[in-house]
Amino acid sequence: MSATFSLWRSLADRITHWPGRGAPQVARQMDQALTLARNLVSQHGETAGTKVAAELASLVSAMDEARLIDFFEALVRNFAADAEALQVAAQAYLADPSELQASRLGAACEPPRQELLRRINMAPGGTALLLAMRTKVLELRRARPDLEPLAYDLGHLLSSWFNRGFLKLEKIDWNAPAAILERLIAYEAVHAIAGWDDLRRRLTGDRRCFGFFHPALPGEPIIFVEVALTRTMSASVDALIRSESQPAASAPPNTAIFYSISSCQPGLRNISFGNLLIKQVVADLVAENPELKTFATLSPIPGFRAWVDKAVAAGRIESGLADQLAQPQWWLDAAASERLRPHLLRLCAQYLTGAPGEDRSVDPVARFHLSNGARLERINWRADLSPKGIAESHGLMVNYRYLPSDIEANHHAFVVEKRVVYAKAVREVMGPPSGPSGRQPARLSLVS
Amino acid sequence: MSATFSLWRSLADRITHWPGRGAPQVARQMDQALTLARNLVSQHGETAGTKVAAELASLVSAMDEARLIDFFEALVRNFAADAEALQVAAQAYLADPSELQASRLGAACEPPRQELLRRINMAPGGTALLLAMRTKVLELRRARPDLEPLAYDLGHLLSSWFNRGFLKLEKIDWNAPAAILERLIAYEAVHAIAGWDDLRRRLTGDRRCFGFFHPALPGEPIIFVEVALTRTMSASVDALIRSESQPAASAPPNTAIFYSISSCQPGLRNISFGNLLIKQVVADLVAENPELKTFATLSPIPGFRAWVDKAVAAGRIESGLADQLAQPQWWLDAAASERLRPHLLRLCAQYLTGAPGEDRSVDPVARFHLSNGARLERINWRADLSPKGIAESHGLMVNYRYLPSDIEANHHAFVVEKRVVYAKAVREVMGPPSGPSGRQPARLSLVS
Amino acid sequence: MSATFSLWRSLADRITHWPGRGAPQVARQMDQALTLARNLVSQHGETAGTKVAAELASLVSAMDEARLIDFFEALVRNFAADAEALQVAAQAYLADPSELQASRLGAACEPPRQELLRRINMAPGGTALLLAMRTKVLELRRARPDLEPLAYDLGHLLSSWFNRGFLKLEKIDWNAPAAILERLIAYEAVHAIAGWDDLRRRLTGDRRCFGFFHPALPGEPIIFVEVALTRTMSASVDALIRSESQPAASAPPNTAIFYSISSCQPGLRNISFGNLLIKQVVADLVAENPELKTFATLSPIPGFRAWVDKAVAAGRIESGLADQLAQPQWWLDAAASERLRPHLLRLCAQYLTGAPGEDRSVDPVARFHLSNGARLERINWRADLSPKGIAESHGLMVNYRYLPSDIEANHHAFVVEKRVVYAKAVREVMGPPSGPSGRQPARLSLVS
Amino acid sequence: MSATFSLWRSLADRITHWPGRGAPQVARQMDQALTLARNLVSQHGETAGTKVAAELASLVSAMDEARLIDFFEALVRNFAADAEALQVAAQAYLADPSELQASRLGAACEPPRQELLRRINMAPGGTALLLAMRTKVLELRRARPDLEPLAYDLGHLLSSWFNRGFLKLEKIDWNAPAAILERLIAYEAVHAIAGWDDLRRRLTGDRRCFGFFHPALPGEPIIFVEVALTRTMSASVDALIRSESQPAASAPPNTAIFYSISSCQPGLRNISFGNLLIKQVVADLVAENPELKTFATLSPIPGFRAWVDKAVAAGRIESGLADQLAQPQWWLDAAASERLRPHLLRLCAQYLTGAPGEDRSVDPVARFHLSNGARLERINWRADLSPKGIAESHGLMVNYRYLPSDIEANHHAFVVEKRVVYAKAVREVMGPPSGPSGRQPARLSLVS
Repeated sequence: MSATFSLWRSLADRITHWPGRGAPQVARQMDQALTLARNLVSQHGETAGTKVAAELASLVSAMDEARLIDFFEALVRNFAADAEALQVAAQAYLADPSELQASRLGAACEPPRQELLRRINMAPGGTALLLAMRTKVLELRRARPDLEPLAYDLGHLLSSWFNRGFLKLEKIDWNAPAAILERLIAYEAVHAIAGWDDLRRRLTGDRRCFGFFHPALPGEPIIFVEVALTRTMSASVDALIRSESQPAASAPPNTAIFYSISSCQPGLRNISFGNLLIKQVVADLVAENPELKTFATLSPIPGFRAWVDKAVAAGRIESGLADQLAQPQWWLDAAASERLRPHLLRLCAQYLTGAPGEDRSVDPVARFHLSNGARLERINWRADLSPKGIAESHGLMVNYRYLPSDIEANHHAFVVEKRVVYAKAVREVMGPPSGPSGRQPARLSLVS
Repeated sequence: MSATFSLWRSLADRITHWPGRGAPQVARQMDQALTLARNLVSQHGETAGTKVAAELASLVSAMDEARLIDFFEALVRNFAADAEALQVAAQAYLADPSELQASRLGAACEPPRQELLRRINMAPGGTALLLAMRTKVLELRRARPDLEPLAYDLGHLLSSWFNRGFLKLEKIDWNAPAAILERLIAYEAVHAIAGWDDLRRRLTGDRRCFGFFHPALPGEPIIFVEVALTRTMSASVDALIRSESQPAASAPPNTAIFYSISSCQPGLRNISFGNLLIKQVVADLVAENPELKTFATLSPIPGFRAWVDKAVAAGRIESGLADQLAQPQWWLDAAASERLRPHLLRLCAQYLTGAPGEDRSVDPVARFHLSNGARLERINWRADLSPKGIAESHGLMVNYRYLPSDIEANHHAFVVEKRVVYAKAVREVMGPPSGPSGRQPARLSLVS
Repeated sequence: MSATFSLWRSLADRITHWPGRGAPQVARQMDQALTLARNLVSQHGETAGTKVAAELASLVSAMDEARLIDFFEALVRNFAADAEALQVAAQAYLADPSELQASRLGAACEPPRQELLRRINMAPGGTALLLAMRTKVLELRRARPDLEPLAYDLGHLLSSWFNRGFLKLEKIDWNAPAAILERLIAYEAVHAIAGWDDLRRRLTGDRRCFGFFHPALPGEPIIFVEVALTRTMSASVDALIRSESQPAASAPPNTAIFYSISSCQPGLRNISFGNLLIKQVVADLVAENPELKTFATLSPIPGFRAWVDKAVAAGRIESGLADQLAQPQWWLDAAASERLRPHLLRLCAQYLTGAPGEDRSVDPVARFHLSNGARLERINWRADLSPKGIAESHGLMVNYRYLPSDIEANHHAFVVEKRVVYAKAVREVMGPPSGPSGRQPARLSLVS
Repeated sequence: MSATFSLWRSLADRITHWPGRGAPQVARQMDQALTLARNLVSQHGETAGTKVAAELASLVSAMDEARLIDFFEALVRNFAADAEALQVAAQAYLADPSELQASRLGAACEPPRQELLRRINMAPGGTALLLAMRTKVLELRRARPDLEPLAYDLGHLLSSWFNRGFLKLEKIDWNAPAAILERLIAYEAVHAIAGWDDLRRRLTGDRRCFGFFHPALPGEPIIFVEVALTRTMSASVDALIRSESQPAASAPPNTAIFYSISSCQPGLRNISFGNLLIKQVVADLVAENPELKTFATLSPIPGFRAWVDKAVAAGRIESGLADQLAQPQWWLDAAASERLRPHLLRLCAQYLTGAPGEDRSVDPVARFHLSNGARLERINWRADLSPKGIAESHGLMVNYRYLPSDIEANHHAFVVEKRVVYAKAVREVMGPPSGPSGRQPARLSLVS
């Protein structure tokens, strides 16, 4: 079940009077929809309000893709700001660039389309419809640059409405409604959940799951994170995901491993929640388990293998190493594996910390955690030997560690100084201070 | 307890680390607040997020009025849109007035202040703080026109966030938390609630109360309406408010009288909810009591007496009538009362339907219900003899009736055609078709 | 997962300080348990209360079977009523058989064991422990008649505590906690649930599920019933269980088919809830779907085939028919099937209505519904061709129908007059008025 | 509002189809009620169940007192155990006084009346009706000893049903439903609550309130306790009740003062909950406020003045002291007051610890706390100068202290050894070791 499908499916549950798709009135759908939309933004709309919004939402929900694109076009074209008034305001501002004129110009810029979208939100299920509309608009983005103003309006509204102040962190455990739990199975993006038994395993005993929810999307997680409570910083995903839960340890856990974060709403793409989620979950976990001292991830390195391949192709990797990597299934051969180990660990450290001469576009997962204030703690050998793990990162995984006292400094180092803060264990696999080009990269920073 | 006071009081409950007012650091408060605000809108703010927002919220909540005004000024001055970029965008739009350029100009217009306000909302209690800020800004509006851009931003954000799609209608009865019920006593704006016994009377038996709530303001009604279920359209407020509840009638009620609507949040002034509330409550009442057929208000006429006085002063009222009205406490004299009755009823019908030669600025309560699609149903003699009732409207009250089938037409008549739709009972008190000026007003419209 | 296992598992969740099984102190467990038990029934027990109860509950929960039986014996032996006082009271009653003496004798009869069990109930998880104890005592019943007094006390207490007035009917749908739903899968006794997809199928769309819950067993259903909303009285279990859900019909359902009732708590054996559950569910379904007119079961006939086999063995069935039934898999042969049809239907009608000369020990499912006031509505051919369906009833199933207006009369007919009330469709398959013995059974009763 | 009245009032809310009192069918009420009761205990009753129970409950709820007494009589007379069977069982037991025969005799003793009461409990509101019935039966107890068997049955059932394991402790604060809060005002038995403002004062800031609730009596507290969190052990009720809440102290509270415990259900008289409530509240308070170290009451001494008066009358008090106490309003005269102080404190210590030669029937409040394991901590001078305080105890109050580590020993001392454990502060006011009779009472015990 793809997340998008699920969204439309849940729309069907939320919007009442859902007309049959392909109903005979298709030809008149567009006219009707635009008439309703015009009514909705008129003064009249404020009175008829919810009813008109519900009719329009129902009509739009039933549109096929072609019809939907027509509708989007009409929204851009027919619900634009008043050009004449806008020109007057622009000239007024240029003549008197005061804050008051800027504010008036801002008001003149706002297209009725934004108010229309807000009023669609009055319909039962309106918020879910707007999310589905943005999902579709973002899919069409490249092919249809003319829809950009609509994309802007939807993004603007949704990012304002899904403000952290309106989100609620919920612990999701085995007592959660099955209707929510099946969404976890559908949305899990990092380590696929194999079914209900696998899911129960991730919600009970030494495991925790937390998600953000929005009051206008009941039962629909926005983003969720899976956590394992352990006594050591996990070095392999097998220990976490594929094995049985350990018997209760004699000592309480002191480490929380964030092993999966999944965004659930494609309609909220580019609106970031993961950072806030991790910090809130750390706070909640500490309140519940005061013994917890270490907070770290066990993260994939999705871009590492591609980066290595590119380096090989460019001749930037010594040829012996390249040959060894070309052996089929080298990771099943213990001796070959052992030979490759120091080289791959070193390369990975370079990849994640940014070798000189390369641009700073490090791994997306690294970028996420480093800019959140985590530090690069440890690179783990043979940490994920699943086909996906091999294909993406030659089986390596990484721990990013969140030290509450260092978060602001780490964030500043990464974002402002463009330095990656890393721990001793990473330094040790780097080898002598020589990158491919023989120099220690200037912007690394060693910690502890 | 004034509503404003209550807001600040509830802020104190919601915002943690509320420092004592008048703390020694007053001198440095402003610097600190502005530093925090700058951090919050910087890229850094996204990481530090909730924590910085909470500190800023706590600081602002503790400011005295002078400090607060300084802070508001700084928000207008220091968090404005980038003037240079805005000028470029304005010129680009004037050169190419396309929808794309309009959208870009809109983006350029948005001041960082708006993002700052959104991030303040991340603080616990942030929404309540923004409401309190808008309350204060609106109070200062006349004296400080330079704060208008801040007023615009706050209004823009709050009206988007308090979208109907995010409000929840709740039935408020005697099982509601006392903390909510005491707010009803504080906020009731039409017929003051005399205490907890009076309140219980309005929440039990044949009475109902409904309110809109927002998830970010738990326990805090946005607006509420009080309803009496009866068997006749109430003609006097005494029967509703001041008398004991009637013993259970033999027949179920067929009429719902909306006898009080109160807005609770001065920070949401000019953002309209009453219309949507009434319609939702009608729908909920019908679902619960299918026998209900008639939905009407028993409403005050706050501007009637002032209008009569003005007409007297202007010599537009015959002098005999004016003399009678000048008798002290004429309403205690049955004969005098009876003589005045037809005249006052006629004048009131004119006042409410709009006599020619006068502008359309009818009574604010009338304007609210008529534009919502109600019709003017009946004017009631000796309906509210309380000091306030006499002072405002010579003791008259009016029923506005909501006929589900006519709502759209009535709304259209009032808003577009500028006609007031009224019922036969109103026609009958109008006397022969002559206003003060002897002509039937052109824009009246008689129904049924 | 057996229901008993699950009970003990959920005990482990509920009782805190659960010591490890096989702990070294096994030898002293019994002494400790009996000391705690004595403390608990002493006056002291009222003060130490919950704490002592929790320790005792924890200790008992950890006992292995041998230890548990020792403990049960000790409860019978050491916590009996005071023999001397009881003898005095018995003699006093015999001398003066008044109601007052009877009441005193009753008080003297009550063994301290009952108060001990009540105080065990004060422990967190105490009610679940008492249920588990009764489960075990009932298992041992035949082997250990000396435990009968304990069985009586537990049954007496639990039947009083699980009074209908304390049970809550809950609708169980796909929004129920997964922890409850997995219990449905474990406890379903009629048509096994194949997994979570099968379960979802039974909780959504045109299906309903309701269960009784007790406040002291949160998340643990006592008994549940599965219902299909349809437009015809189902004649085959395949249509209900094994096929896909039908697309939403154009017309709303008018029939509710109860196709499965499962008791969940072996510790409540012989305490009847099914009757009350069905009636409450009928009332709730009507409130929610006023169009529902027909309420019927689709029920198995667990004893039919055994009854036929016995009749064959006794030569009470004509030999041609017996030979046909002896053909392997005759139900896969359409012609053979068609020949058997009238005979099996007739025999089944006899089996269910009770042929003269046979004792009244009809089918247990029939007895349950008929004594609840249902009538025998229809016998369905080829209604359950699953191995279990063939093995139990030659593939036949039956509809029992609950007509609200007839329930009391039907109940009276069955229980007092020992008559089975049946509908015309049953009469029609009975053939000419001759049972095996050629006479219309005197106690049948034809309806409609 | 008396508690009893409230019970009947809430009955009216809970039991449906409540017929008007004094309805014409009064004459036939009794016949109808007894027919329904017979139906309910018959086998038929199990089927008709809830419906018959509801009809009977409705009928009984509408009876006037005379009718109710007739009904109670009929319950005793007509629903007794089968005398013949009981005689057989009694003889069988006397012949073979085994545990099995005792258990059978117990079963034979149980009158159908008990089952009838259990089935009445199936009616909506049935539990509340049974409580009201027991309230009435206890009122009639002296006048009608023949109703004793009914009193026994009701007490037996209710004490089993209101087992601690079924009670839920709830924190009652200002967010509780007004419908519950108004019951606190009605039921408060120690320090009357003056209205809603006084109530709010007792539920917010440094005050806490907790109550036990039973699932069958939603919204109806069984018993509740009021607690003040302080920094010293309160010595005067004024500081707690009559003054304004103190401003938030700089340090968190370390002391919890239980200043009022009120039972709410006269139908549960003699079924003790206070002991369990206090211990559970102590545990909950510690979990919420780990700084709390001292748990004590500030309690009235309801029997002290009467005891002094009796001693005066008997000449056991020196005459000078008696004369001073006879001065009207001596407590308003500082010098007189000061003279009396040591004497009254000494007498009070004697009263509470039990002088030899007097029977052990100490103060009921003292008996409650001492048998719960509290110790007598301090006697407070001029602690309650309200008219009630003067009238009951010459203005004295007492602190009983609950030291978790000593509870069991204190309980044992009081209940088994018949010693009162008291603290040094009490010893100090006792004066030289001479009671009125000149000897140190043997059973006192000095602590710390």
